[in-house]
Amino acid sequence: MTQPLRIAIAGLGTVGAGTIRALTENADLIEGRAGRPIQVVAVCARHRDQDRGIDLSAYDWAEDARTLADRDDVDLVVELIGGSEGIAKETVERALDAGKHVVTANKALVAHHGTDLAKRAEKAGAALAYEAAVAGGIPIVKSLREGLAGNRIKRIYGILNGTCNYILTEMRDTGRDFDDVLAEAQRLGYAEADPSFDVDGIDAAHKLAILASLAFGTEVGFDAVHVEGIRHISPIDLEFARQLGYGIKLLGIASQEDGVVEQRVHPCMVDVDAPINYVEGSFNAVVAEGDFVDTVIHEGRGAGQGPTASAVVADIVDIARGRLTPTFGVSADRIAKLSTRPMSEHRGSYYVRLMVVDKPGVFADVAAILRDHEVSMESVLQRARDPGLPVPVVMTLHETRESAMIGTLEAFEAVEAIVEPPRMIRIEAF
Amino acid sequence: MTQPLRIAIAGLGTVGAGTIRALTENADLIEGRAGRPIQVVAVCARHRDQDRGIDLSAYDWAEDARTLADRDDVDLVVELIGGSEGIAKETVERALDAGKHVVTANKALVAHHGTDLAKRAEKAGAALAYEAAVAGGIPIVKSLREGLAGNRIKRIYGILNGTCNYILTEMRDTGRDFDDVLAEAQRLGYAEADPSFDVDGIDAAHKLAILASLAFGTEVGFDAVHVEGIRHISPIDLEFARQLGYGIKLLGIASQEDGVVEQRVHPCMVDVDAPINYVEGSFNAVVAEGDFVDTVIHEGRGAGQGPTASAVVADIVDIARGRLTPTFGVSADRIAKLSTRPMSEHRGSYYVRLMVVDKPGVFADVAAILRDHEVSMESVLQRARDPGLPVPVVMTLHETRESAMIGTLEAFEAVEAIVEPPRMIRIEAF
Repeated sequence: MTQPLRIAIAGLGTVGAGTIRALTENADLIEGRAGRPIQVVAVCARHRDQDRGIDLSAYDWAEDARTLADRDDVDLVVELIGGSEGIAKETVERALDAGKHVVTANKALVAHHGTDLAKRAEKAGAALAYEAAVAGGIPIVKSLREGLAGNRIKRIYGILNGTCNYILTEMRDTGRDFDDVLAEAQRLGYAEADPSFDVDGIDAAHKLAILASLAFGTEVGFDAVHVEGIRHISPIDLEFARQLGYGIKLLGIASQEDGVVEQRVHPCMVDVDAPINYVEGSFNAVVAEGDFVDTVIHEGRGAGQGPTASAVVADIVDIARGRLTPTFGVSADRIAKLSTRPMSEHRGSYYVRLMVVDKPGVFADVAAILRDHEVSMESVLQRARDPGLPVPVVMTLHETRESAMIGTLEAFEAVEAIVEPPRMIRIEAF
Repeated sequence: MTQPLRIAIAGLGTVGAGTIRALTENADLIEGRAGRPIQVVAVCARHRDQDRGIDLSAYDWAEDARTLADRDDVDLVVELIGGSEGIAKETVERALDAGKHVVTANKALVAHHGTDLAKRAEKAGAALAYEAAVAGGIPIVKSLREGLAGNRIKRIYGILNGTCNYILTEMRDTGRDFDDVLAEAQRLGYAEADPSFDVDGIDAAHKLAILASLAFGTEVGFDAVHVEGIRHISPIDLEFARQLGYGIKLLGIASQEDGVVEQRVHPCMVDVDAPINYVEGSFNAVVAEGDFVDTVIHEGRGAGQGPTASAVVADIVDIARGRLTPTFGVSADRIAKLSTRPMSEHRGSYYVRLMVVDKPGVFADVAAILRDHEVSMESVLQRARDPGLPVPVVMTLHETRESAMIGTLEAFEAVEAIVEPPRMIRIEAF
């Protein structure tokens, strides 16, 4: 008979309640896989009396999550409070410093402080596990850190925010605009009251920074992620994308070349037949490209009670079983400094839409601007609209440097006959 | 400075050579992830002088793989010989009995003797790891055994044989028949000279039996897998499938209900929009459905030097790092006896194609047979062909029991106006 692993859970929102449900409903099965029982000792949340649909009577109640670190009867603290600073951070730090293992679903915390926390964990001989922080129920942290350990990872990319993917899928399928679909998503509970964390790409950038660190063995560098959201995507661009043979997805993409890492989150046009384009609605997907394994795709639910709890429990089972791994797969002294390529030096292909008033000379202006910035056109598309109204002119541009593209867009903006800000979407080849 | 993990490699075919390449080319990176160096001590293969494109001069040469178990300077034996009996089995058994860890890519061995080998490994305190045995480079064994450890798995299914998927994809895209595409695949090296292992579904069944054991915590039961291959699939069925909104894939499907497991490998019609239908060419994919995680899809290359070596190295790194797990995720005394449902009791929907000579009364015969077997029709499709030639009559049938379907097909076969053996393909809803 082996000793139980004694855990405390800080934060009893959706994920906390789901974790307790999974540990209770699948207790026997989980004990078999963990090699010993998992015993919840104490819990902690902001409000004690809220009905969470689970029975908490068997657990101690702690008023302050930070004090969980001080308990002799706790081996592992599960941090489900959220936020990169404050109580969540203090709880994790104090637990690690006390030699307790920590399991967290907190992507902001790991994205902002991952490297420091990894060092603390290593110093204390404790594990810091965060499968639930990236892509919900998809075991991508484990796959990258262990399953693909034989590979030099060249690129990793994916759909890392289900809210954005849901909105883009709905916009494409119904022709409705962003604000309309967002409002509906909020009514249905798929989007937060304050949606900016999701729709402006920050949540995806947190996850991408973590994935990049795992994939390339570098420090976590959230601040170095180029981030754009999906507010500017309009139905007309989705329609032009369709005509050009593309879908539009918000992707996080990290790549490495000669030790230099590029990290970016932005809407992308992807080939309509690329596997990533088939990922619909609120699903997430992560694609890893390694030098031996070639391409591996993981797809599943990136959020929600069940999937996130599944990831939290997997981390608990690993620790119970003694399958300990350094936070980012290698010991802290082997984590490389992060050297990044600024977005201005990124090279890629581009889609540009201009709204043009049909006046003599405007195409000459456009052509001259492209020539002056050494940007070359691959295709151009102009469809008539009601006479007198601005006409969309859509171009795809051959691979060029981002800085040249930015210069081109600024020059377009100064043309009087171009009556709306130019819209640019990057085209990715997978 | 930690001690290296000392390994011996038995079998230097494509995968053996790939494993040595990965361990050499990515040595520094792998050492970081493993926490210590991986040192190849000895190798062994049938022919010593063959040019494998790798330098073996630094390694001892063993004449007999079984003797690798006796070496004091070996911690782990990598078995890449293949085959469920003979040298491969003896090498693995002797290594485990001597307390050496074993990593193998041998699906036949694990499918036939997995439960016994798991007991041997546990008794000796050694690990038996076999990520490379299922779906090549996709880390599906790790995902199931560890990443989804919090879940009761309800169903697991996938495309487990790249040769079959390649042949079916080619047949669909070109309209050519099975024999023609198989011959081309053999010329291109995508199919073996003796293709029956692949095209008759045996290889997929080996993998499915392993996945089912991992997913459900039961003994490995290869003999209980219902197996059919793809030889009977013809271009006309692919075309009718397309018209009905389906694709045809060879799938392995294992499900569990109240402790009773169903395991089957056969061609399936799947909705054209199901994610599994997008898996093209030689790729593999595995879909797991758990009670908390919902659906998780893994996709990647199921064979080839690089992907398979990637899986072998991942297992080696796990063992080097001390991440030891019981062979099937739980200790041997927790592995449940396998209780299976015979295929005759399977319930599902069906596609049936009859080649009918257009004579009065034949439809009445068909309708009477369906009625007598209590099988009800969902749709029927008949297209005219050249007069005088047999006409295909295609039906889809509502969910019924397999035994009723078999009885129906036998009765069809006895009708004189049905001039070819009826063709049946099961329809799966995902």
